[in-house]
Amino acid sequence: MADTNHKQVSVAEFFEKNRHLLGFNNPAKALLTSVKEAVDNSLDACESAKILPEIFVKIQEMGENRYKLIVEDNGPGLPKKVLAKAFGSLLFGSKFRSTGGKQGRGQQGIGISAVIMYGQLTTGKPAIIISKTAKEKQARHHKLHIDIKTNEPDIVESTSKDWTKDHGTRIEVIMEGKITKAKQSPYEFIKQTAVVNPHADMEYIDHEGKKHKFPRVSNKLPKAAKEQKPHPHGVEFGIFKRMSKSTSARSVKSFLTKDFDKVGSGTANAILKAAEIDGRTMPKLLDDDQIHSIHKSIAEAKIMNPSTDCLSPIGNEALAKSLESEYDLEFVKSVTRRPTVYRGFPFQVEVAIGYGGELDAEGSVTMNRFANKVPLLYEEGSCAITKAIKGISWRSYGLSNSSGSMPTGPAIIVVHIASVWVPFTSESKAAVSNYPNISKELKLAIQECARSLQQYVKRKQRAGLEEEKRKKFRGYSSEVAIAVAKLISNESYKIAKKDIDKTAEPIQEKLLATAETMYASGKEIDEGEEENDE
Amino acid sequence: MADTNHKQVSVAEFFEKNRHLLGFNNPAKALLTSVKEAVDNSLDACESAKILPEIFVKIQEMGENRYKLIVEDNGPGLPKKVLAKAFGSLLFGSKFRSTGGKQGRGQQGIGISAVIMYGQLTTGKPAIIISKTAKEKQARHHKLHIDIKTNEPDIVESTSKDWTKDHGTRIEVIMEGKITKAKQSPYEFIKQTAVVNPHADMEYIDHEGKKHKFPRVSNKLPKAAKEQKPHPHGVEFGIFKRMSKSTSARSVKSFLTKDFDKVGSGTANAILKAAEIDGRTMPKLLDDDQIHSIHKSIAEAKIMNPSTDCLSPIGNEALAKSLESEYDLEFVKSVTRRPTVYRGFPFQVEVAIGYGGELDAEGSVTMNRFANKVPLLYEEGSCAITKAIKGISWRSYGLSNSSGSMPTGPAIIVVHIASVWVPFTSESKAAVSNYPNISKELKLAIQECARSLQQYVKRKQRAGLEEEKRKKFRGYSSEVAIAVAKLISNESYKIAKKDIDKTAEPIQEKLLATAETMYASGKEIDEGEEENDE
Repeated sequence: MADTNHKQVSVAEFFEKNRHLLGFNNPAKALLTSVKEAVDNSLDACESAKILPEIFVKIQEMGENRYKLIVEDNGPGLPKKVLAKAFGSLLFGSKFRSTGGKQGRGQQGIGISAVIMYGQLTTGKPAIIISKTAKEKQARHHKLHIDIKTNEPDIVESTSKDWTKDHGTRIEVIMEGKITKAKQSPYEFIKQTAVVNPHADMEYIDHEGKKHKFPRVSNKLPKAAKEQKPHPHGVEFGIFKRMSKSTSARSVKSFLTKDFDKVGSGTANAILKAAEIDGRTMPKLLDDDQIHSIHKSIAEAKIMNPSTDCLSPIGNEALAKSLESEYDLEFVKSVTRRPTVYRGFPFQVEVAIGYGGELDAEGSVTMNRFANKVPLLYEEGSCAITKAIKGISWRSYGLSNSSGSMPTGPAIIVVHIASVWVPFTSESKAAVSNYPNISKELKLAIQECARSLQQYVKRKQRAGLEEEKRKKFRGYSSEVAIAVAKLISNESYKIAKKDIDKTAEPIQEKLLATAETMYASGKEIDEGEEENDE
Repeated sequence: MADTNHKQVSVAEFFEKNRHLLGFNNPAKALLTSVKEAVDNSLDACESAKILPEIFVKIQEMGENRYKLIVEDNGPGLPKKVLAKAFGSLLFGSKFRSTGGKQGRGQQGIGISAVIMYGQLTTGKPAIIISKTAKEKQARHHKLHIDIKTNEPDIVESTSKDWTKDHGTRIEVIMEGKITKAKQSPYEFIKQTAVVNPHADMEYIDHEGKKHKFPRVSNKLPKAAKEQKPHPHGVEFGIFKRMSKSTSARSVKSFLTKDFDKVGSGTANAILKAAEIDGRTMPKLLDDDQIHSIHKSIAEAKIMNPSTDCLSPIGNEALAKSLESEYDLEFVKSVTRRPTVYRGFPFQVEVAIGYGGELDAEGSVTMNRFANKVPLLYEEGSCAITKAIKGISWRSYGLSNSSGSMPTGPAIIVVHIASVWVPFTSESKAAVSNYPNISKELKLAIQECARSLQQYVKRKQRAGLEEEKRKKFRGYSSEVAIAVAKLISNESYKIAKKDIDKTAEPIQEKLLATAETMYASGKEIDEGEEENDE
């Protein structure tokens, strides 16, 4: 009677069927996700090896709704023993951490293998992987599939060949895809990636063979993110317990001070005292109740905020410079906030606002969202960044918006959130969850930029207004002068009608000179006068 | 230089960190998700064994933000050799299919293990599993954890005990949780589950010890969903290729006719002819290009829509009856649409609308969404069902709404989508994706119910209007009669002033009688008269 047809499903089988969870919902989004995963991978590889990235992307049309994606980098290359698995097995990689970690683009070791899986699902073609480390003489060429049932690479062909590159990695995947011209195109993704990665040199050849160059703007590698121990406030019970069982520390006290961030001897003593645990106890000997007491007293303990050198922000100068190099703007302001914390994870918000120039004065402002230097192109509506922008009353900052909607005006708002662990709303990593601390920081950062924008816009409006007044004044000056001349002709001066024009001339000159001086000195005309003016 | 710290991450490790993907975002949602996964599991188990389900759910407070969830069913029980893995290993189960399949609540073999994993993560406590099949004398008791690193059950204690039940399964999991009183409470979930599962008997004891009973409304088990072969139009290339390599069929032709739904000899011949493949070829010998030709000619071939006996709708009568048993209503209309297809998967939409009675006349209507008989309580905004309801202009159906928003009025709208493969927007399975065919069917089904509602509301409004007129008429009849009497007193009849009242009496009587007859016969008063009335 019972249904005993039970079996274990591989993670590859699961994600093949549920590939929408990874961002492969439809051909257009799948192609974009593939570009994103490959470029993320390349940038991460270069930065971890302290190499200034040179990235080449090409999308080649292979038939109806069929494209070959090529991504090549000058990264360190992957050693032979992990190369096939890094691309041919889901959840195999170097980036996954249950706790702690450092800021990176990819976080799970799932992205690039999913691209290969998607190519194979839709076209059946194997992927081509070429990689060479500086130590190796030749590059290794793999042609491989992913064996879905076992989640292992299935190498069809493997050879060694000369390569002009000293080190690097290149992948080629043929897949079903669709190119959109919308905001969510590969071109837009690469352009936005260039904006927030000013140290990267990127080249993109699109499906029509058109070459787009995004040259390096800064020769400085971003501050490298450091690997970080977990902060005790971000560690849940189950993980805390697991750590206590597998630690190499010989006492609970050294377990706390060595395996966690920001726990010194004093803090450890306080935690253990509150939990009524002897600090000399071996961690492995703690029973569940004891572990619970410690975990609970950690939650109640005052512990310094986590170290923030695991973060690698873009930097406000680099961000402003990069934005200016991609867009022709009148005004740019950027802000990098100090790092702060949610759920024990440090994070940092950066915002830049550009205004005027080539930007469209009609319609909504352009919003570019980034997480760990990766552009977010989908799920705009559910993202904390969008919500933060919509939640601001832009009228007081020189733009306009009706309550709860995107502001309108000639502006671009760039928001970047950097974190060891960005809380995405889904594994397609397109939107940031609405954690209160994150929302608050986002709002403060945006408002800080917006205040500068407001001053600029106000100054500009005033300059515009004054220029207009000056024009009006000049335009009417002759009539005013004549009127004045007439006025005085009828009164004490008794000027003859035929002489009015003659009399008006010097009056007009005088009027104009006074006006020029007045505007040049910046003297304000107060509200009352303004109204009379009209 | 290269980052060689590569390792394989278990699927348990991945989902422990990414548990928001499975619906464990926060304590309130996690508790609800746990109830849902356990109840889904129990209902599926009972139905697959053709047992009328009796399900007991209890949530017991164990401390601050800590609850024990108990779910017990009279299902077939699980045999010893799969019991531990079914609960202690993610992606182990009997329901996952790459293609084809049948309608079920759980689809992945991931839900109930995730509940246990969440309990362990937040409280460290092992889960208790009790199960007995009819064949066994005693029930097996397991106390188990999930070993996160290996994704295998870690059995702490295993015993056999007598059990009053002949067969069934019970689980107990202690977890961090939070009870909300909102629309997303366990109570609401169970109540809604009862509505769409009229054959289930459910009992719920909430955290305050209050007992809620949801008795069985129908003794008829729903039509069992049949396991179905995949329809060729829903099979992607990579899966098609894999099937061709692992089929037991000895010729391509029999591969097509035996392994797929709706492919007879004629259809297979047509497909193979268009692909220029000899039907006698052994499937295993096909090369990539040949497989491609066949796959392509399948896409272009006319093939009958998939069989729909893999679906198990609630049925419109059962749905209406169930809705009436849970709510006190004036009007109910339900519709079960004929099955149709998206991406090769059959699906079917059912809608019921209830009106009036205990429902609140102010504010938005109540909307209950279901997929495969499971209430959907989260992500309302991104669900195709919500979008379909909001997209209708309700003013013409007796309710009201401003463009693009939920209708308002005393109504409840129940929408159920049944499918072999419901395309959820995420693995937390709370919202249905917006596939065009699905959206269209949803709209048609809702509109069909809405037309009946419109007739009812119109009739009710007219009845109300007439009653009001009748009241007014009665109220004014004495004045009218007097006026008439006065009128005639001044004219030909010459009635004395003191006799006016006497004369008016029979006039009033006559007026009232005429009015009664008029309203009773349903004779309409045309618009012109209506307006004069006021």
